[in-house]
Amino acid sequence: MPQPTTDVIAIGNAIVDVMAPCDDAEIERLGMARGGMTLIDTDRAHALYEAMGPAREVSGGSAANTLAGLAALGAKCAFIGQVADDQLGEVFAHDIRAGGIAFSTPNRAGDPPTARCLIFVSPDGQRTMNTYLGASQFLPAAAVDEAAIADAAVLYLEGYLWDPEEPRAAMRQAIAAARNAGRKVAFTLSDAFVISRFGDDFRAMINAGDIDILFANHVELAALTGEDDFEAGLAALAQKVQVLAVTRSEEGAVAVSGDERAEVAAEPVAKVVDTTGAGDLFASGFLFGHVRGRSLQDCLRLGAICAGEIISHYGARPEADLKALVAERMGHQDA
Amino acid sequence: MPQPTTDVIAIGNAIVDVMAPCDDAEIERLGMARGGMTLIDTDRAHALYEAMGPAREVSGGSAANTLAGLAALGAKCAFIGQVADDQLGEVFAHDIRAGGIAFSTPNRAGDPPTARCLIFVSPDGQRTMNTYLGASQFLPAAAVDEAAIADAAVLYLEGYLWDPEEPRAAMRQAIAAARNAGRKVAFTLSDAFVISRFGDDFRAMINAGDIDILFANHVELAALTGEDDFEAGLAALAQKVQVLAVTRSEEGAVAVSGDERAEVAAEPVAKVVDTTGAGDLFASGFLFGHVRGRSLQDCLRLGAICAGEIISHYGARPEADLKALVAERMGHQDA
Repeated sequence: MPQPTTDVIAIGNAIVDVMAPCDDAEIERLGMARGGMTLIDTDRAHALYEAMGPAREVSGGSAANTLAGLAALGAKCAFIGQVADDQLGEVFAHDIRAGGIAFSTPNRAGDPPTARCLIFVSPDGQRTMNTYLGASQFLPAAAVDEAAIADAAVLYLEGYLWDPEEPRAAMRQAIAAARNAGRKVAFTLSDAFVISRFGDDFRAMINAGDIDILFANHVELAALTGEDDFEAGLAALAQKVQVLAVTRSEEGAVAVSGDERAEVAAEPVAKVVDTTGAGDLFASGFLFGHVRGRSLQDCLRLGAICAGEIISHYGARPEADLKALVAERMGHQDA
Repeated sequence: MPQPTTDVIAIGNAIVDVMAPCDDAEIERLGMARGGMTLIDTDRAHALYEAMGPAREVSGGSAANTLAGLAALGAKCAFIGQVADDQLGEVFAHDIRAGGIAFSTPNRAGDPPTARCLIFVSPDGQRTMNTYLGASQFLPAAAVDEAAIADAAVLYLEGYLWDPEEPRAAMRQAIAAARNAGRKVAFTLSDAFVISRFGDDFRAMINAGDIDILFANHVELAALTGEDDFEAGLAALAQKVQVLAVTRSEEGAVAVSGDERAEVAAEPVAKVVDTTGAGDLFASGFLFGHVRGRSLQDCLRLGAICAGEIISHYGARPEADLKALVAERMGHQDA
């Protein structure tokens, strides 16, 4: 196998986030699950948008956010995801390409429109997400560029996209392509609701050795393993994947790889403005360290620094110069 | 005449701002006039968007921004402006209505799309604007709701919209409707380039007594009066309008009304992030004070506080609770 020329290629939802502040009474009044992610249909999307305050739009999508962080750190990235032929699709495509990420999935003509996520941000920074998947759920297997996957050190997949049928088939095909090419497969579990629907798929893939690097938060870890105890949950998975990275919100993160274990505290943040993208940007930093051959401890630290940047402002795409931030916080090594 | 039930009705561009940070070398490379506003066509819009970094979208438009600030302060407002029947039009309409502002101008079908302004924000917060007017320039005179204008204490017009022909006719009709109903007309000069094209129109309107409240910055004051000296410029206009309010960037603002003159310093800001909307939000605070019958000095102070909020973050729509901010900074009067 030749050396890959891309660091990370990802398959994920192609979404534009629509964000507005709200108070918790409004979350309750609108019948939303605070802190969660809920898939919504057209009618609910209209009703929630109407109830939402003046908003701002920033490109999002979990894996796309992770790539935006990776690219900002200096990694070479590519993205596969489905937008429609509309203005929000143009916004998504612009933002990902402007970040230096290769993106060539053709627009999908006609309805439905490009995906959007209506995000209500509470005063403490907690985000409650309502996702209208639109075109994103129709990513066809034909969009999986096997040559591009074979040319990337890591294939990164988001669990959110396991829900709709076509992208699930596309991702299975991509995993096979990566395995055939001897590349690594990284997977993020995304949300407990995905595990409640597709946990059996994920456990089967993990048991079959199809996932090398697994990202989860502590809630997803418990949902996947059935272990309420954090350490028991770690132990249940740690030997089944090469690298397991688990975030614990304000308690930082833990990573296990073989016999090695490392922990990191959450990065201090002056004010938590909007937690949207915290897990996504943790994965950016961690994967960047991984593809650059850094220690497990350094990977965690890189993840914590990137997560800390993203929760200090609205939106899940980095605003600060991540490269400079990492250099400042970790010393001028090879970051 | 019955008492008006609306405080301010405005006619302005219906624009979505697309903002990204940039450095000054990029401004030069792209041939833009740093700090200015330039009207661009479709080709230039595509070229500049392609050159722009990852961006965020927030509703804009000068007069619409002013109303957003007024409504946030507690004023009752209405807006007249033209969007297309597309996603950005939906974004604009949502944001203005979600701010509590009445907006009922029907969408315009077909091409061109909703207006957007590509804003390059320099490290010092200076904004360089490139406006693709799209549907906004086709605001028809039929959209001017004369009953709504007669029902508002103040009609507020933005000079930017004087450029295209149809909205210019619509605004002339609106001025006549306001005059007939005995309401006040407020006008912002917007930009020196507008004065270079339409200064004769503005001078004629001022001399005819059609403008009661005039907003300008120091550059526009000089352009309109031909007086390079600030005091001479003030003197040339002060007796021709009931209220003249002139901003001077970091030097604060001056207002003159009859024999009264007041000045205010710029509000201290921890970090100037993006100056987009500084003049618009100054007008919000000033007009709010005016319609509430506050002193000239209070009007200026309200303007300075609102301008200070808007330049401390990206985007020209307020993020902080303006009512609370004003109460905190001015004491709990009747703000």
